Amino acid sequence: MSNFSKISVPSDARVELHDQIGLTGAEVSINNLPAGASVPFVHSHKQNEEIYVVLSGNGKVVVDGEEIALTAGDWIRIAPEGKRQFFASDDSAISFACIQVKAGSLEGYTKTDAII
Amino acid sequence: MSNFSKISVPSDARVELHDQIGLTGAEVSINNLPAGASVPFVHSHKQNEEIYVVLSGNGKVVVDGEEIALTAGDWIRIAPEGKRQFFASDDSAISFACIQVKAGSLEGYTKTDAII
Repeated sequence: MSNFSKISVPSDARVELHDQIGLTGAEVSINNLPAGASVPFVHSHKQNEEIYVVLSGNGKVVVDGEEIALTAGDWIRIAPEGKRQFFASDDSAISFACIQVKAGSLEGYTKTDAII
Repeated sequence: MSNFSKISVPSDARVELHDQIGLTGAEVSINNLPAGASVPFVHSHKQNEEIYVVLSGNGKVVVDGEEIALTAGDWIRIAPEGKRQFFASDDSAISFACIQVKAGSLEGYTKTDAII
């Protein structure tokens, strides 16, 4: 079986990659909000750390009531218990990826996990 | 302590986020190769699955000797044992993020891990 799987992500409102590319250590979703829109709920997690990257546009995320401005190239980690909600700007859409991983699950990495 | 940490990534050749934003379930690196350049070695991993996203530009990755074309918006999973090397195109730089996670570490996610 091949050691890789690739997807070119369409510009749907939300695309989830776990099953499409066979992820086993993360879930990745791509989320596109038009200008003025938001994710319609606040959420937190039981055990998953979330890592967000802004792919294009700008907006904000509110974490535990605190507003954090977001623009393309920003990366943000949110602990499982952080209560979060994402918003596009009033005058800009935002596209962001959300990477869910189990908090504390990483053991070695880079120099201690790579074989060259 | 705050439940979030954010970084705006500069356009250096390589930026590693694990320590900068306190990741515990992944390492994320942002990698920028100018046109004609490549990562100067082939590597695989002991236990980490890698998820790559092309942020801009285009190029290719060779996995186990097979060439896969890459352009902005592509996501690719590579199993730990896949022997991989990334290249920018001859006429285009490429910027990509690499997300390292422990293969098999994800338990619940989205509906089974979120609290709304």
